[in-house]
Amino acid sequence: MSGRLIGVGVGPGDPELLTLKAARTLAEADVVAHFAKAGNASNARKIVEGCMRAGVVELPLLYPVTTELPTDGTAYRDSIGQFYDQSAAAVARHLDAGRTVAILSEGDPLFYGSYMHLHVRLSPHYRTDIIPGVTGMSGCWSSANAPMAQGDDVFMVLPATLPEPELERRFADADAAVVMKLGRHLGKVRRALGRTGRLARAVYVERGTTADAVTMPLEQKRDDTAPYFSVILVPGWEKRS
Amino acid sequence: MSGRLIGVGVGPGDPELLTLKAARTLAEADVVAHFAKAGNASNARKIVEGCMRAGVVELPLLYPVTTELPTDGTAYRDSIGQFYDQSAAAVARHLDAGRTVAILSEGDPLFYGSYMHLHVRLSPHYRTDIIPGVTGMSGCWSSANAPMAQGDDVFMVLPATLPEPELERRFADADAAVVMKLGRHLGKVRRALGRTGRLARAVYVERGTTADAVTMPLEQKRDDTAPYFSVILVPGWEKRS
Repeated sequence: MSGRLIGVGVGPGDPELLTLKAARTLAEADVVAHFAKAGNASNARKIVEGCMRAGVVELPLLYPVTTELPTDGTAYRDSIGQFYDQSAAAVARHLDAGRTVAILSEGDPLFYGSYMHLHVRLSPHYRTDIIPGVTGMSGCWSSANAPMAQGDDVFMVLPATLPEPELERRFADADAAVVMKLGRHLGKVRRALGRTGRLARAVYVERGTTADAVTMPLEQKRDDTAPYFSVILVPGWEKRS
Repeated sequence: MSGRLIGVGVGPGDPELLTLKAARTLAEADVVAHFAKAGNASNARKIVEGCMRAGVVELPLLYPVTTELPTDGTAYRDSIGQFYDQSAAAVARHLDAGRTVAILSEGDPLFYGSYMHLHVRLSPHYRTDIIPGVTGMSGCWSSANAPMAQGDDVFMVLPATLPEPELERRFADADAAVVMKLGRHLGKVRRALGRTGRLARAVYVERGTTADAVTMPLEQKRDDTAPYFSVILVPGWEKRS
């Protein structure tokens, strides 16, 4: 009798945006696993602080330090791949012992989540359930009070890592868009929005739904520095009727 | 002292996928408003059945019967526009009396939700807060256990109402996609997926997260009939590493 794997979406940041199902699942799980960078507390773990059962077994999965490696190189990919393999093996040991293991995922587990790397390794072999969560982007446009998409709008999620001409082409082709992974790419995104006539309606959001959320029209943001987990919203629904 | 408007996302269908914040808000609201078609119970209202405070004032907003009108015509648009104006006025009367009004929205309020039509009419004049919800599409890919998007994937939401060549062009240009509003457009979507090499990985989902959810590879679905609220998922993340 092997155990059960549950990918648990914990939402965008506000602990109250956990679902009732996620809260119940965390209260019942034998083991709660969460990703974190060495030396940093896991964001997902902080969100569920108030829902953890006393005495529950925790399994922190600590990313290897890879800051010295170029992220497009083989050494980086090997190191990260090995980390996911080892993490999956650590979870599997609990599952083999018949335990229910909840793996925390910020936002929604199957939408750009780290959990997915364990999902593809484990779900073919163990009973697996997913508890969807409020995505980070929903949290951001809710904090910004920005009606995002309606009716026949085509909506896109674009990584800021795309080349500038490609971003420009995509913006021109979307009714509504969210740009993720801003980091050092904000200047490029700003130019592409300007050249496609989208700059005036673009909204910049940092840490949506949390107490220290930052929300402003992108045109009012003076500098081009942005944390990795900030987003730019380009609301659609231009008719607004 | 005017009241407070709250757009409340109630998630994709499973009542347990309500957030803690939505549940608390519904327990505290003076008035709970919900959209429905005349003669049909509101889906959103059914989802929150267990969270409604005894004696709370309910404000059902009943869509006018428009089945005899072509949806691209002026008469239809006028009728619907008038309905949203009247609904906003009905909500405003409660707000003017200082009450807190929660308006239910399936999925997420600012993502293709009917609530948005009231939001644009009321939020410029009243204190307004949004409680984001788990989207219908998150519910569907979670029910299907389908890892949707990862890393630098470009993700798109496409209405099935787009012309066939346009659907084909969009599929070829997306790493991952969700097709909404299937209804009588399923045959067209299927052909466009086939011609862009996406048919084999497409998944059909009806009523994700509910007890009567239907999930199957699209290739196994024999007929081209689909309810309006079914979706097709085209998962991305082709490397899966």
